[in-house]
Amino acid sequence: MISDLKGTFSQISNNNKRSAIREILKLTQNPEIISFAGGLPAPESFPVDALDSIVSDMLREEGAAVLQYDATEGVTELRELLVQKYQNEGVQCSLENMIVTTGSQQGLDLVGKVFVNQGDVVICGLPSYLGGISAFQAYGAKMEGVPMDEYGMSAELLEAKLVELRDQGIKPKFIYIIPDFQNPTGITMPESRRLEIIALAHKYDVLIVEDCPYREVRFDGEPQRLMYDLDQDDHVITLGTFSKIFAPGFRIGWILGPKDVNDKIVVAKQSSDLCTPTFVQKIAIRYMQSGVFEENLQKTIDLYHQRRDVMLAEMEKHMPDCVKWTHPEGGMFLFITLPEDMDAMELFHKAIEKKVAFVTGNVFYCDGGGSNTMRLNFSYVNNEKAIAGIQRLAEIIEAEVAVETC
Amino acid sequence: MISDLKGTFSQISNNNKRSAIREILKLTQNPEIISFAGGLPAPESFPVDALDSIVSDMLREEGAAVLQYDATEGVTELRELLVQKYQNEGVQCSLENMIVTTGSQQGLDLVGKVFVNQGDVVICGLPSYLGGISAFQAYGAKMEGVPMDEYGMSAELLEAKLVELRDQGIKPKFIYIIPDFQNPTGITMPESRRLEIIALAHKYDVLIVEDCPYREVRFDGEPQRLMYDLDQDDHVITLGTFSKIFAPGFRIGWILGPKDVNDKIVVAKQSSDLCTPTFVQKIAIRYMQSGVFEENLQKTIDLYHQRRDVMLAEMEKHMPDCVKWTHPEGGMFLFITLPEDMDAMELFHKAIEKKVAFVTGNVFYCDGGGSNTMRLNFSYVNNEKAIAGIQRLAEIIEAEVAVETC
Repeated sequence: MISDLKGTFSQISNNNKRSAIREILKLTQNPEIISFAGGLPAPESFPVDALDSIVSDMLREEGAAVLQYDATEGVTELRELLVQKYQNEGVQCSLENMIVTTGSQQGLDLVGKVFVNQGDVVICGLPSYLGGISAFQAYGAKMEGVPMDEYGMSAELLEAKLVELRDQGIKPKFIYIIPDFQNPTGITMPESRRLEIIALAHKYDVLIVEDCPYREVRFDGEPQRLMYDLDQDDHVITLGTFSKIFAPGFRIGWILGPKDVNDKIVVAKQSSDLCTPTFVQKIAIRYMQSGVFEENLQKTIDLYHQRRDVMLAEMEKHMPDCVKWTHPEGGMFLFITLPEDMDAMELFHKAIEKKVAFVTGNVFYCDGGGSNTMRLNFSYVNNEKAIAGIQRLAEIIEAEVAVETC
Repeated sequence: MISDLKGTFSQISNNNKRSAIREILKLTQNPEIISFAGGLPAPESFPVDALDSIVSDMLREEGAAVLQYDATEGVTELRELLVQKYQNEGVQCSLENMIVTTGSQQGLDLVGKVFVNQGDVVICGLPSYLGGISAFQAYGAKMEGVPMDEYGMSAELLEAKLVELRDQGIKPKFIYIIPDFQNPTGITMPESRRLEIIALAHKYDVLIVEDCPYREVRFDGEPQRLMYDLDQDDHVITLGTFSKIFAPGFRIGWILGPKDVNDKIVVAKQSSDLCTPTFVQKIAIRYMQSGVFEENLQKTIDLYHQRRDVMLAEMEKHMPDCVKWTHPEGGMFLFITLPEDMDAMELFHKAIEKKVAFVTGNVFYCDGGGSNTMRLNFSYVNNEKAIAGIQRLAEIIEAEVAVETC
């Protein structure tokens, strides 16, 4: 080995932290553990049966073309279908606004790659999706957190943060927002808040990165318009994905963005992986055209809806009064706030002993806060296990409450 | 749009150049043009028929697991098969040395991400694969070129470059080498040269990045040992891929590297795309186990062998004496050197008029040289077209030679 390997690694590599969630997930792999920790879609929601004939037809009808390289922007027909999907809900966009990415994690990576220099400020919610934070931090982003209320990122505190930064001569590269069923909180931003934040982006001349992995998985309430749609002034870059509504193992995501931004992103993607696998893109085209897409999405929504209801009902029954939690209208996660002096990390170790797991909320707080919070996933575990798991968890919290004061 | 979008892009984005080849390829898309320009494998070499039953069996036997997220390092069974493949040829390696990447372009990107800071020096051959150069330049690499002779990168000139850099207090991050059927020259490095370069890497305390996309596609001569294998002192990181021996549309590559390097690469990959698509990895596992892999590889080798022979024979017949070209023992490309004062870019425009295309060699020279060189691909075009194309090309060069002096 060379003499100073450590000193040879890049700043990006030194910025890159091994995911804290990954370390937590390692502790939860014992099959006896009921885990609310992961972020996995339910395998029952995957359209296994439909794919056999789709792939078979595809190979017969398209042959070698599905195994060849394709354009860096993505297979044109898939981009057209995705544009159509947004146009159907009234969004103004065209082919030049659409790039296929290798999962929306690559969307986050490319946004980081194209905008962030070492030391640049990026604003995110407190708390926020760790994979987004990590992708931006890799390129040297200094994350500045803005607290959330029950409607998502506080517009008032966002403006205070923007003023504070402006007074220091700092212009943030963008504001990172997950408006629908946010990871980790499950909170959805109503249109009024979206408009307030867009107005701030205009006033302070800042881009918004709108991450929408769960948007289509809505159980209750009214669908909210995309921030991309509400803006119409090229301030918003939207990320989407098939991971939660088709199959994460396909790694197909997309970026709906202003043309001038997309031009840069395509060049960056070219040196990142040339193109997203043609094979899975071509399957996705046929899957979208088959009609199974909508049918299976509805099945997924119904399944998660029911799982969320079971989980909320069980929490209502067993959790001590001093424990609060969110009531997501969709997505895969809910978020628990414990009494302020209770440490979720201590609870985590006790929970693992009792064979139940969650992710401590602090990993989603870029300011090191959130020590009394935890994220629970409700998409993966079946009802029977969820009931047993919530009961165990409630007992552990109850015991802790008895020690401290509620 | 924000007021200064251009100023908002990162240094990486500004480093990133749109591929010159891409621009050339756009001019060659007219179907009447016989194009030796691209770098595409022959679609006839793809195992379309075998895949139908493989995918069908996979979905029936493994179900939803093939559609779920999997480990960032790659699906364990695929990593095991790849390790086995190298062990079978005597390479000492184990699971911790093997990471699956989203094509070997992602391997190049991750190597750049993990090692290169803005302004760092990376050494490459003159000429060298543009996608490698671009991936490293994106992270700010200053490419220093070392001329090649008929055995690949000159060891003597490499040492001179290393001394020159050392005298300036500069330590290059790594030496980028494509030892087998190099892109663009088609040249293979014999073992003696590999050993010389490894000795220099040891002497000057530098890593080697060994890029092997074509290695398995050998028609003539003896297989050469991997530099990774010859070294055995953790100085070499090797990149491999299924793109030329199975299907580029699967985007499956891998990194065979020292454990300490791979640990960093996995963390970088996690924020890049979480994992390579499970679906295509699981197909690749079954494809490797099916026995069709070897059979289809032999078919590919035979096809390209014959195409190379046809092309070489035709060049021998028609090219003016003052034109020289390489005689690759494998891979997909050969490289033409024209008389020194002849400009391949001028020829390119004349060639497009006559409906034949190639890539000018200069795009592969990081020092701006190579204006009298051109790369021809022999894997994609069928024999009939290759014969017609070479005849047209020879006529154009002949006419140019008549004008200038040979």
